[in-house]
Amino acid sequence: MPSISERSKQTPESPIRKLVPFAEAAQKRGTKVYFLNIGQPDLEPPTSFWTALENRGSKMVAYGHSAGLPSLREKAIKAYRERGIVLKANELIITTAGSEGLMFAMMACLNPGDEIIVPEPLYANYIGFAAMTDVNIVPIPTYIEDSFALPGVEEFERRITPRTKAILICNPNNPTGCVYSRKQLEELRDLALAHDLYVFADEVYRQFNYTGEPIPSVLQLEGLEQHAVCVDSVSKTFSLCGARVGFLMSRNAEVMAGALRFAQARLSAPVLEQAGVEGALDADQAYFDEIRVEYMARRDLMLDRLSKIPGVKVPKVDGAFYAMIQLPIDDSDRFCQWMLEEFSHNGATVMTAPGTGFYATEGAGKNEVRIAYVLKREDLDAAMDCLEAGLAAYPGRVELANA
Amino acid sequence: MPSISERSKQTPESPIRKLVPFAEAAQKRGTKVYFLNIGQPDLEPPTSFWTALENRGSKMVAYGHSAGLPSLREKAIKAYRERGIVLKANELIITTAGSEGLMFAMMACLNPGDEIIVPEPLYANYIGFAAMTDVNIVPIPTYIEDSFALPGVEEFERRITPRTKAILICNPNNPTGCVYSRKQLEELRDLALAHDLYVFADEVYRQFNYTGEPIPSVLQLEGLEQHAVCVDSVSKTFSLCGARVGFLMSRNAEVMAGALRFAQARLSAPVLEQAGVEGALDADQAYFDEIRVEYMARRDLMLDRLSKIPGVKVPKVDGAFYAMIQLPIDDSDRFCQWMLEEFSHNGATVMTAPGTGFYATEGAGKNEVRIAYVLKREDLDAAMDCLEAGLAAYPGRVELANA
Repeated sequence: MPSISERSKQTPESPIRKLVPFAEAAQKRGTKVYFLNIGQPDLEPPTSFWTALENRGSKMVAYGHSAGLPSLREKAIKAYRERGIVLKANELIITTAGSEGLMFAMMACLNPGDEIIVPEPLYANYIGFAAMTDVNIVPIPTYIEDSFALPGVEEFERRITPRTKAILICNPNNPTGCVYSRKQLEELRDLALAHDLYVFADEVYRQFNYTGEPIPSVLQLEGLEQHAVCVDSVSKTFSLCGARVGFLMSRNAEVMAGALRFAQARLSAPVLEQAGVEGALDADQAYFDEIRVEYMARRDLMLDRLSKIPGVKVPKVDGAFYAMIQLPIDDSDRFCQWMLEEFSHNGATVMTAPGTGFYATEGAGKNEVRIAYVLKREDLDAAMDCLEAGLAAYPGRVELANA
Repeated sequence: MPSISERSKQTPESPIRKLVPFAEAAQKRGTKVYFLNIGQPDLEPPTSFWTALENRGSKMVAYGHSAGLPSLREKAIKAYRERGIVLKANELIITTAGSEGLMFAMMACLNPGDEIIVPEPLYANYIGFAAMTDVNIVPIPTYIEDSFALPGVEEFERRITPRTKAILICNPNNPTGCVYSRKQLEELRDLALAHDLYVFADEVYRQFNYTGEPIPSVLQLEGLEQHAVCVDSVSKTFSLCGARVGFLMSRNAEVMAGALRFAQARLSAPVLEQAGVEGALDADQAYFDEIRVEYMARRDLMLDRLSKIPGVKVPKVDGAFYAMIQLPIDDSDRFCQWMLEEFSHNGATVMTAPGTGFYATEGAGKNEVRIAYVLKREDLDAAMDCLEAGLAAYPGRVELANA
């Protein structure tokens, strides 16, 4: 038998996906499952997406330009300009969702064995991307007690080694819902410049900002032009998770030239969805406002319910549509699976994502789960009923010392 | 300025894409450009693609299963079974086109620095994929004199080192149009088994077979079950280049488990095109027969025209829709660019892909270009007029000693 690669072994199963077979089995038994494991909004994309797709006017499905359909790139650049982010044509390419954008960023800037500092808990798939591109994630712990706030620069600084090439942040944060302030970002910028590090920013949740203050993009931090690499996506912004259309942006010409060569190697992003996204970009502020108001109401309901469950600890949640919460449990993998395999409440149960998968640090996250509050309030309320009853019945319940 | 990665530097510009700006400039000057640089068929996909997309019956664009839409996987497995390739459910996953499938194969099986033996000229993007995944391509020369036939196993054997993990073949071959026989494939199998090497097979041109004999898939080579990894795509088969839907297949459970973890990290392939492809798979044999007959006629016209141009050498072409041809020129990069920048014939010119990009060996391919005969015969004929006139006028013309 030929051997398998190290990077294959090191790429973890997705905590968002790995329990899906248990959920499917529960559904087969007739149990209703509330899916709070994945950031899959229950909303439709703007109707302008479908209109643009219908009006595409070709029966051919030819390769698109490797950097993205020129008309879509132009429109995206215009949309960013309206948000105060001014980019030249070659400073933005269309990627096959944010995932590919981040892979391109890692591959363009890091050699195998190089290091990237990331606050944790972190978006689980960063661990996969790092394994796939043979780079090492160096995590910095953040704490539920201060709502997973961005660590001080000294915490970043003490983890910098000769192999450190980049800092990666997700703002607003998946999985914590934390939003980083301009002041924090500026301190991070100063550190990155002092050590000549890239700052990769995953800003795919930028529309999900409940602070009332605008969130600056890394692309708006003065002086960081050659160091900032930003990833965006239509998955969440326009409820187009399955479209696989994203944006990679940087003013660093070498980074973008490298990313374009990678893009050429894979030829093209999917063209039908790109055509639709051109339409989606026409969505007006009212579309985003409506969604934000809805998500704020969902967040409020969820936090209110959770805070009343004995032994549950919740952080402040200012953005995105996730919360990392602490539960009185022995092992989040065991608990999440048990909820699907062994438990039901009024014929229903809830699927959450085990916290362990959101930590690069071995053994962390055992008493945490990530909740994606992507269901309508009625369902979210019923899901909280299940979680509350499940926690009361779970045989691996442990009282947390600090709860 | 932060440094850029080695893999970024080593990923070449695509020879298929890099001259596109010159072609666009020519078009702006009013010159008609015949695009023979890229394998972009001028055909429409089966109408069943569009019907399936229209009948999708959802206004949501949610993530699909990471391994592909279950209904599409099922249908694909059925389609392969009808071709004599019997696979279990977990032996096939849907990838974001063949490109991603091959990247997954490389990442699943090879560590950075490992080697993969590939006959050359080779599909240019293999060089990019290898750079992106930090593996080394070890090329074996093949020769136009024997129509780029697969090298004997001794040629593979003498290039095997402790770092060799895989052999990669493309059959029918892009860029040469060569088709490998069952006997050759069986010899390669024996070698792979003797040295415990993976055999990666890019079989995306399997429907473009003009030999009259069936082409065995690596998945049909007895004994190679744990070593064979096959990549397929709808890009060429169904003229769906822009759809970005492909298939990665292997009976090696560890390879497929690794590929699935990679697939989970990037969440989903594009879902609208997957829905359409489910319809495209209904295309009947008549659809393929018609296309094959058309491409054989195109090939015949092209080879007939080329063989009459002084100084041009052509191979036998048995499959795919490419030919690597030898021209009486000093430098294929210079020639291809000159054809776009400086030359026109009756207001038209032709874009071909410089041969250099199809060699991992530095300096090879300087008197070769790849032609993709993807245009209707009338246009192909006019393109050959341009090529003939261009070769007569090109200032860097050199007479080849062996022509």
